[in-house]
Amino acid sequence: MDYVKDGAEIYRRSFATIRAEADLGGLPDDVAGAVVRMIHACGMTDLPADVRFDPAVVAAGRATLRNGAPIITDAKMVASGVTRSRLPADNEVLCFLDDPRTPGLAAELGTTRSAAAVELWRDRLEGAVVAIGNAPTTLFHLLERLDAGWPRPAAILGLPVGFIGAAESKDELAANPRGVPFLTLLGRRGGSAMTVAAINAVADPKE
Amino acid sequence: MDYVKDGAEIYRRSFATIRAEADLGGLPDDVAGAVVRMIHACGMTDLPADVRFDPAVVAAGRATLRNGAPIITDAKMVASGVTRSRLPADNEVLCFLDDPRTPGLAAELGTTRSAAAVELWRDRLEGAVVAIGNAPTTLFHLLERLDAGWPRPAAILGLPVGFIGAAESKDELAANPRGVPFLTLLGRRGGSAMTVAAINAVADPKE
Repeated sequence: MDYVKDGAEIYRRSFATIRAEADLGGLPDDVAGAVVRMIHACGMTDLPADVRFDPAVVAAGRATLRNGAPIITDAKMVASGVTRSRLPADNEVLCFLDDPRTPGLAAELGTTRSAAAVELWRDRLEGAVVAIGNAPTTLFHLLERLDAGWPRPAAILGLPVGFIGAAESKDELAANPRGVPFLTLLGRRGGSAMTVAAINAVADPKE
Repeated sequence: MDYVKDGAEIYRRSFATIRAEADLGGLPDDVAGAVVRMIHACGMTDLPADVRFDPAVVAAGRATLRNGAPIITDAKMVASGVTRSRLPADNEVLCFLDDPRTPGLAAELGTTRSAAAVELWRDRLEGAVVAIGNAPTTLFHLLERLDAGWPRPAAILGLPVGFIGAAESKDELAANPRGVPFLTLLGRRGGSAMTVAAINAVADPKE
């Protein structure tokens, strides 16, 4: 079979195809870099129309990672997917979904485990990069805690996926990001692969 | 904020929305179950038009997992995402991407690490469930090895994503699955989240 086997060439041609097809006009260069990687992770060049962002989001995320801040995520797949060699300060990647305290917190608060895990973010939240790639309830719960005065992360990559609450939680983030630089994708699309792509782009500008 | 916080209710409403919107006509029940979970993982109800499959694929994959067969995948995110509690026999989930032999094999064979890792699948391939959620070169390389007479897996979930080779590798699988029951999604879409969803559905019919 005839196909491209050179990994570097596959990357080069992939990103060239994305940049030729996707409408990246109006995106700052660093945000465009993140969106290109998100497109690469899902195969869909029509993402830009649904992307909403603070122009500072990538710079803010990159700066805080260089200063050693952790990445906090809702999903184990996201934590697993972050390319460690792109992280500028051997940054921690934290996910509290399987923390033994989470099920009890979920029962106590009457919410999902994914949302309850946010309770365990508080001590690490200030200046962190938050990456939500699965559960809308995580994003809703975080926004509620920010409304209650919790410490501010440096950036929110808000990319939950699905049919119940995903679009609504991302609408809420885009309408009122509580003073935190953010990147989101309106609608039902999102997910762990796209979220990892966004983190990897924030961590390191290398395409 | 007003949103659904009951995890079971979120699942129920999500799957009801998917079944109301997606055109699952013509899919056997067990394949439809896998496609519903794939839709759930990506937020897109238009997948069925691009799905190609052998009607035996889910039954074959489920039976071999019950018999203790391993899952072999190209991507660490896929390996990480498989819900262990759905596996019927505490099945192994194997990924050889980081095997120390892989870079040398890639150099020797003049291909990607993702494709070279397939060389290390051989001894575990017979009767396994193969799940490809990232690299088109993995799927191409596997098909070449099957042409060379390698042992047959019980099922191939072929869902690589991207712009260079993804559509072509899945066209090749659908056109000639080398006698192996398969499930694929034509075009550029695919990826680790969707692949995990397909594995989880094959492993356990529970919605």
